[in-house]
Amino acid sequence: MANFPKQIILDHGSGGKASQELIETVFLPFFDNPLLREMNDSAVFEINGTRFAFSTDSYTVNPIIFPGGNIGSLAIHGTVNDLTMRGAKPLYLSVGFILEEGLPGDILQEIVGSMQKAAQEANVLVVTGDTKVVPKGQVDKIFINTSGIGVITSKLNISGQNAQPGDLILINGTIGDHGMCILCQREGLSFQAPLESDTAPLNSLVENILQTSPHIHVMRDPTRGGVATTLNEIAHQSQVGIEIWEESLPFKDSVLGAAELLGIDPLYLANEGKVLIFVAPEEAEKILAQMRAHPYGKDAAIIGEVKAEPKAKVWMRTQLRSKRLIDMLSGEPLPRIC
Amino acid sequence: MANFPKQIILDHGSGGKASQELIETVFLPFFDNPLLREMNDSAVFEINGTRFAFSTDSYTVNPIIFPGGNIGSLAIHGTVNDLTMRGAKPLYLSVGFILEEGLPGDILQEIVGSMQKAAQEANVLVVTGDTKVVPKGQVDKIFINTSGIGVITSKLNISGQNAQPGDLILINGTIGDHGMCILCQREGLSFQAPLESDTAPLNSLVENILQTSPHIHVMRDPTRGGVATTLNEIAHQSQVGIEIWEESLPFKDSVLGAAELLGIDPLYLANEGKVLIFVAPEEAEKILAQMRAHPYGKDAAIIGEVKAEPKAKVWMRTQLRSKRLIDMLSGEPLPRIC
Repeated sequence: MANFPKQIILDHGSGGKASQELIETVFLPFFDNPLLREMNDSAVFEINGTRFAFSTDSYTVNPIIFPGGNIGSLAIHGTVNDLTMRGAKPLYLSVGFILEEGLPGDILQEIVGSMQKAAQEANVLVVTGDTKVVPKGQVDKIFINTSGIGVITSKLNISGQNAQPGDLILINGTIGDHGMCILCQREGLSFQAPLESDTAPLNSLVENILQTSPHIHVMRDPTRGGVATTLNEIAHQSQVGIEIWEESLPFKDSVLGAAELLGIDPLYLANEGKVLIFVAPEEAEKILAQMRAHPYGKDAAIIGEVKAEPKAKVWMRTQLRSKRLIDMLSGEPLPRIC
Repeated sequence: MANFPKQIILDHGSGGKASQELIETVFLPFFDNPLLREMNDSAVFEINGTRFAFSTDSYTVNPIIFPGGNIGSLAIHGTVNDLTMRGAKPLYLSVGFILEEGLPGDILQEIVGSMQKAAQEANVLVVTGDTKVVPKGQVDKIFINTSGIGVITSKLNISGQNAQPGDLILINGTIGDHGMCILCQREGLSFQAPLESDTAPLNSLVENILQTSPHIHVMRDPTRGGVATTLNEIAHQSQVGIEIWEESLPFKDSVLGAAELLGIDPLYLANEGKVLIFVAPEEAEKILAQMRAHPYGKDAAIIGEVKAEPKAKVWMRTQLRSKRLIDMLSGEPLPRIC
């Protein structure tokens, strides 16, 4: 099989170029079917007249507890958000724990407690689960898989394939908070201004938006690979160009400062409580106002626009009005980010 | 919280007593809801008039490739079977891979190829997935989570709570094959007679049975903890006694021989292609005949009977007509069995 990797490297899990290659050379050829081929955050299918979204994610974040959350809340938020991105109302989650022998019970209790709070806030039920314990040294502390089912009641067709020239692009708040928080925890860096993960459930924010506007074309949460990679995926899936405006991008000063110090582009850092929304231009202000009225949207901004050409490209119009190409993530800046 | 464990031990993942304690002291108190509390292989719920089953399992089996299958086929079969056990027709699966940096590409290809074959045989589609790669040494080679959704069309209420005094108990073939195969691989033991995992999808066998008999009360696949632990769970959930008959239990000679040599009770060894069926006595012979007509049921047998008393107990009537109590698994004979 062409390009089949000789061995798995960290890049294959980055959410960027190598991840896409792995999917295209290994998973799609074997499992090929129309639902999988759509390559959205969730699969969508109809059963007896009801449309469902179904999604899965495994969480391996290191450290397992970090400012703003832990691997448990992250695992609930992540799957809630993946369902939400297809316009679904998340209903039921499964949880699969893989625990390392010797994990302290109070750590597990803290994590499960956070999962409960996160599930309550997102109004979902954990209905089925599984726990495996592996001998010391064969897994690092705890990994969690969550899968979820949601029901799609809206008639909108929200997909990465639906971006249209002229669409404006919104985000509900500051970029790169989760990735920078994990990075600094990992490296033992601390700054005066606090760095905190943005991990949060987005279903109530998105529900509000969907009730207001019938012209949402794309919704996607920029997790692994960050805003840059997610926009590239959408540009590719929809065969459009995407321009973002440097002066409009919302960042926390602490994240920008740390990024500069570490020489990292925050557009490639993971977010866990952010959504990118593509919408017909006449709807953008209304949606912006509604985002800003929600606790998880108060720093919302309009950050760019969809162009007809050049297709499958993303670029930034800088403050000096030059253009800089924004590629997909290539290489893995930070394994175990989520 | 009473009995909350100080630290996680291998027993907590055994599927036996300690697993149940972990569920009862950690997961149920936090996530408590009626669907989870049923503690069956899958959660069952109704959405817009259709009944669904939803199930999850993480697979950490070691070695990842073994006679009769590999971690990939096992992961497909396991979730297909968990859905099947609630009388559901499995439809859609998710797959979450956690890969160790450095995993050879051809091993991944072999595993994904087996998953494809297993999914095709079981007539299910893998519709959504996720891949994480963690640095070398932070996970052992590959772990896989599969979650699945099925539709329940039968009106039967099949549950671990429905065993009734007088029910006969059937199994579709020999006991302990998977567990003994993995154990011998792990320990580098080889015997003249080949030991092979029984990993297999049970949905077509069970579909045949459900079409024949309207009197199925309980179906459950005796995986972790083996036949002994599964029967104890059912005896507990249904508040009945369960008697099994030593002379009727089907074993491969190779499994019995290895068990004797190693001093292991094969009733506690995991199976991955076996189902226990509890049925009204007048239906038992018909179901037995139908099992035996199926490739995955040719060694099927009637192995015991449900009694009113003593409640929540399982015992074996030996060939000498004495009675031996069969407890749940306590301790972990073999971590990473599935």
